[in-house]
Order: sequence, then structure tokens, then C-alpha cells
Amino acid sequence: MTSEFAFIEALRAIATDPAARGLDDDAAVIEIGGEKLVLTMDTVVEGVHFLPADPPADVAWKLVAVNVSDLAAKAAQPLGCLYSHALGEAAWDAAFLVGLRAAADHFALPLLGGDTVRMPEGAPRSFSLTALGRGPHGCPVPSRSGARPGDRVWVSGTIGDSGVGLALLDGKLNAATLSAENARWLSQRYRRPSPVPALGAALGPMVNAMMDISDGLLVDARRMAGASAVRIVLGLESVPLSRALRETAGQDRAARIAAVTAGDDYCLLFTAPPERTAGIREAAAGLGCEVNAVGVVVKGDGLTLMHDDEPVPLPERLGYQH
Amino acid sequence: MTSEFAFIEALRAIATDPAARGLDDDAAVIEIGGEKLVLTMDTVVEGVHFLPADPPADVAWKLVAVNVSDLAAKAAQPLGCLYSHALGEAAWDAAFLVGLRAAADHFALPLLGGDTVRMPEGAPRSFSLTALGRGPHGCPVPSRSGARPGDRVWVSGTIGDSGVGLALLDGKLNAATLSAENARWLSQRYRRPSPVPALGAALGPMVNAMMDISDGLLVDARRMAGASAVRIVLGLESVPLSRALRETAGQDRAARIAAVTAGDDYCLLFTAPPERTAGIREAAAGLGCEVNAVGVVVKGDGLTLMHDDEPVPLPERLGYQH
Repeated sequence: MTSEFAFIEALRAIATDPAARGLDDDAAVIEIGGEKLVLTMDTVVEGVHFLPADPPADVAWKLVAVNVSDLAAKAAQPLGCLYSHALGEAAWDAAFLVGLRAAADHFALPLLGGDTVRMPEGAPRSFSLTALGRGPHGCPVPSRSGARPGDRVWVSGTIGDSGVGLALLDGKLNAATLSAENARWLSQRYRRPSPVPALGAALGPMVNAMMDISDGLLVDARRMAGASAVRIVLGLESVPLSRALRETAGQDRAARIAAVTAGDDYCLLFTAPPERTAGIREAAAGLGCEVNAVGVVVKGDGLTLMHDDEPVPLPERLGYQH
Repeated sequence: MTSEFAFIEALRAIATDPAARGLDDDAAVIEIGGEKLVLTMDTVVEGVHFLPADPPADVAWKLVAVNVSDLAAKAAQPLGCLYSHALGEAAWDAAFLVGLRAAADHFALPLLGGDTVRMPEGAPRSFSLTALGRGPHGCPVPSRSGARPGDRVWVSGTIGDSGVGLALLDGKLNAATLSAENARWLSQRYRRPSPVPALGAALGPMVNAMMDISDGLLVDARRMAGASAVRIVLGLESVPLSRALRETAGQDRAARIAAVTAGDDYCLLFTAPPERTAGIREAAAGLGCEVNAVGVVVKGDGLTLMHDDEPVPLPERLGYQH
């Protein structure tokens, strides 16, 4: 047991209020004035979640986007955010605010407050953001734990793009091996994820379980299976890959395994009964979003991976694991 | 203009939503489902807001308390909090949680969620907390900007205790010069501030302006005067000093100036028409709290300091100034 894991267990023992959802979900949900308020908080630290050389505007965008992704996964409409800023070099901070403003506008998540703090000399930058959203009316706020045997498993968007973008930015993938357009698009997918709260909100009444994919499809699907006490069976061949990813990494089994274990997708993972299929496709199409069925929920526990009806051993690393 | 000041000006240009209150208040206020939700966020950084040798449980307590103090100043009842924890040494972190739990219980502010992050080697610890409260029914959420000429100016609690406690803990004040009981009590005032949300809630309908005193009575009173476009006149002789402070530092003008420029009081500063006097005293007495009238609001701007009806030049340092 890592000390982080032990610490989170100790936190769970404190967070006994039902609104905390056992700290097992993407967000907290409190009821106030007949509304459901959805709350999430994420922190990014220089040298851990971003690099000193990353463009500050992209760091800010991503900080907003990862929180919006949690709201989307809870079918919540963005209401606003508070954030805490560790002051550093003035030009860097000013550029950060350009990205913050762009993201706040893009996601309709107005800045409501927060804190600015001075840091000791040489300390890494760190930023925390709390996002608030208004939960759905007429249906529960989707949780990770509602998946039921018989459900289909779905994802929104395309999987693995961010992982390739990161490899490119890290220099692990040679930029000369792909087109400038693909390189730009894949890097952007890593630096400026674009969750779609309207899609989450439209799906809310139709799903049994929903969460965002932040650490990798496999590890997040296994978490959903665990929270729901079911087994999830994923078909690798059904996992949607973008044209840019296919042109760069191909679409053989190795490429697909890489895609489903890469993190930072900020797509939705959800399950719903088969009779919801048409409604789900219609809702997504109405918003110009892609959704794809990638598996099924069955009795049991854990995660099973298939490829063209053939079982595939789970890779040792399912994604980014805390 | 410091770069921090310039940065906050740039933030204000982004935070144009009315709920942000121009980033000029202690908290943001959004309306949802006919309720007023009060939101505040504070960050503490090792080496800036606390020292590596500080007891971790006290660091956690104070992080909760400073946020609760903001809720109290907005007449809000605590609803819950989210917090972000920078992981460090396991024993330190475990001790931190003991203080967090104690404070969450004491202030009835359940932990609802948050984030835990790993830090680069050698980075200072930092913790952010977002607190939510339910604003008052039947009256507006008090702001800093409502003080009106003719109002009396009040403070809750006693002023300056934390400053003496800090001097003691810092070694700037020789512990041998005061009783063990006073030393313990004054240190505790610094390490475990105890704002009283029930007092803020009771005062809410009676006040014209309210804020918490976090950076020093003088600097905070001047901020209130500025936000309200009035002049505040404070009488040093009326500023309530605790017995422990009087026994330690005396109560002459120098001791009083030290008290009103020390920070970390986490008391309430509020103004109300004279006809509210009996109601205010009654509300405070009912909660076992001390309140004292310490000045008046007049037309004009800025802050005037008096002592026994004699004008006193403002000290160069009014408190902790950002």
C-alpha cells in the first residue's frame, strides 16, 4: 500500500457526509434549494502535472478543462470557479491569465473568486481550481457506481490522442514522422482538452453510470467496474481512434493498447441499457459529438479486454495509477 | 504597483460576473435554487503562511478556520469544504488530518472532496481549501461596501491576541516574561483561531457592512472604508484587549497600536446604525460572544485613529498588506 493510498483511505474515514460520495466519484454533490450542486477541485503542480517549459496559457486552459471534464461526467452545467494562484514571474503569470480567460469563456465557467499566494524562492508553481456546476433536473447525478449487467459501455470522442501528443511534446515521438497538421492537432489534444458539458448533460438521464477518462480508458473502466461491482468487457477493435492517431501510430493491437492506456483523454465513459442506444446517438449527433459503444457490462468483477472476439491479456500498466 | 497588485487587477478584469463581487469581498455569492451560496478559497504555503516546525494539526485547523472566518463574515452557515493536499512525509500528513478532522467537526464543515497531489522533491507543502456556506435568508449577504455615515463600527472578540501569540512562537517575545497560562492561551489564539459562524449569521440582518479581520484591524477597516466610500473613525481606547494580552503587553497606546496592526485575529468587523445596538448586544450575548463598538462611520474617505479623543497619526504599517 503506497502512502498516497493510505492517506486517501484516511481521508475517506473523514469524508463520511453522503455529499462526498465516499471520495470515490469525480465530484461531490450537495443539495441546496432543490438544486444539486456539483463540486470538483483539481490541483496542478509544476514538475508533476506540467513542465516549466509548457506554455502558461495552456497550463491554465488545462486546469480549467480537467475540472470541467468532471462536471461533464456528472451531467452538470458549469456555474463558475474559484482558483488559487501561486505568484511567480509576472510575464508568465500574465500569459497564464490569457489562457484562463479563454478557457473560462469557452466553457462558460466564470471566475468567481479564489486566492493569490506568494511562494518561497525556487518553489514549483502550483494552481488549484474548484469548479461548480448545476446538476441535472429530473434524474440523479450520474455516479461511477451505477453500471448494471446488460448495459452497453460507451465512450465519447476519440481515445489516445493526448498520449501521442504528449509523446510528441516530450520528444519520445519524432515529429518528423508525421504531418505538421497531425502534429499540431495531437499536441493540441494534450494541451487543450475540450470536454463538452452539454454532452454530459444530454446523456445524464440516459446513463446508468458515467465518469470522465482522465488516467486511461482501461484504468478508468476498471475503476467503474469496481465501483459498480460488475465486470466490464471492452472490445479493442471498437475503441474510436482519430484519423491523426491512425496516421501516426497505426491501428494494430499495439497502437490500440497504447491508446487505451494513455491518459489525459478527458472524454466520457458511460454505460446505458441497450434500449437507450438510439437516444444516445441522437443526443450526441445533435451536439456534433462522436460516441461509440466499446463494450458491455456483465456480472462479475474487474475488466476483460477482447480484440476481434479474442481475449487479450491486460497490460501491466492500465494507465496513470495513483 | 507591485506585481501582485497588477496581477490581481488583471484577475478583476476577468472576474466580471456579479457573483465575484469584483474580487473585493471575502467571498463569492451565487444564487441557486432560491438560496445564496457563499464560496471562499484560501491557500497556505509552507515558508509563507506557516513554518516547517509548526504542528501539522494546527496548520490544518487554521486552514479550515480562515475559510470559516470568511463564511462568518458573510453571515453564512458552513455547508462543506473541498481541499487539495500536497503529499509529503506520511507521519506529518497523518497529523495534519487529525487537525483537519477536528476543525471540520468543530465548525460543522464536512469534507466533501478535493485532490491529493504529489510534489517534486524539496517543494514546500501547500494546501488549498474551498469552503461553501449557505447565505442568510431574508437579508442580503453582507458586503464590505455597505458602511454608511452614522453607523457604529463594531468588532467581535478581542484584538491583537494572535499577534502576541506569534511573537511568542517566533521567539520575538520571551516566554519567561508571562505566565504559562497566558503563553498557552495567546499561542493557541494564533494557531487555532475560532471564528463563530453563528455570530455572523445572527448579525447578518442587522449590519450594513461586515468582513473578517485577517490582516489587522487598521488595514481591514481602511479596506472597508474604501469599499464603502466613507471614512471610518476608530477609538483606540475602545478596542477590546484580552486579559492575557493586557497582562503581557499592557494597554498603553503602544500596546494598542501593536494590537490593531497585528493580523490573524479572525474576528468580525461590522457597522450598523446606532438603533441596532441593543439587538447586536443581545445576539452576541445569546451566543456567549463579546462585541464592542470601536468607532463610527462618517462622510469622507480613509481611516482616522483617535485615542481618548485625541487624534493619533496612523502608523506606517496598518497590518499585513498584500
